[in-house]
Amino acid sequence: MFTGHYTEVEAKAPGMAGAQATTRWLITRERGAPNFALRVIEIAGRGERIPLHEHPYEHEIFVFEGRGRVFSDSEGRDLEPGDYAFVPPGEKHGFENTGDSPLRFICVIPIRPLGERSHLA
Amino acid sequence: MFTGHYTEVEAKAPGMAGAQATTRWLITRERGAPNFALRVIEIAGRGERIPLHEHPYEHEIFVFEGRGRVFSDSEGRDLEPGDYAFVPPGEKHGFENTGDSPLRFICVIPIRPLGERSHLA
Repeated sequence: MFTGHYTEVEAKAPGMAGAQATTRWLITRERGAPNFALRVIEIAGRGERIPLHEHPYEHEIFVFEGRGRVFSDSEGRDLEPGDYAFVPPGEKHGFENTGDSPLRFICVIPIRPLGERSHLA
Repeated sequence: MFTGHYTEVEAKAPGMAGAQATTRWLITRERGAPNFALRVIEIAGRGERIPLHEHPYEHEIFVFEGRGRVFSDSEGRDLEPGDYAFVPPGEKHGFENTGDSPLRFICVIPIRPLGERSHLA
């Protein structure tokens, strides 16, 4: 097994153009995960966003700090600590910080075939 | 998409004999997840445990409340909020609450083939 604190993992700028966020890849294929990767995504300040986008894989999300919103092209849901969200493969979605402190959430994605990269890394 | 607060999901007794814990299945195959399930596991009081056990699938864990310990048959690691843990498939592991409040953590597992059930549900 391995363990660590999420703050010890580098906060990387996302690969996605226009995303005002950082991603910490805590548990990855490179560290031995066979099926899915566990990341912490942070949107630092109020009004900052990951804009509407889509990809062929799902998100499983759990908010542990801050306030925000997940939105699609047709609806939005407020998020607070203890909230979870499921975004199915192929559904347009984005995130916004709606609070006065950093929004931080766990976001789990399936591991991509070797040679492919997530849009967020 | 769907969202919710983890406390709205039923806290079920684990299927595993001797486990002093509850499991809330937030995102599951039944709710549309194609690849992995996201649960909240709670060990309520100091000294309560999920005993040493093993299974052929991994755990990806993130602690959001409380203090505890993850242990194998050869080592132990303290856990606090913001800590993550990876337990590889087949590795013996258990958990203990070492604090004065409930230990609560996210635990993600791969979705089992139809007809199979996780030992924790």
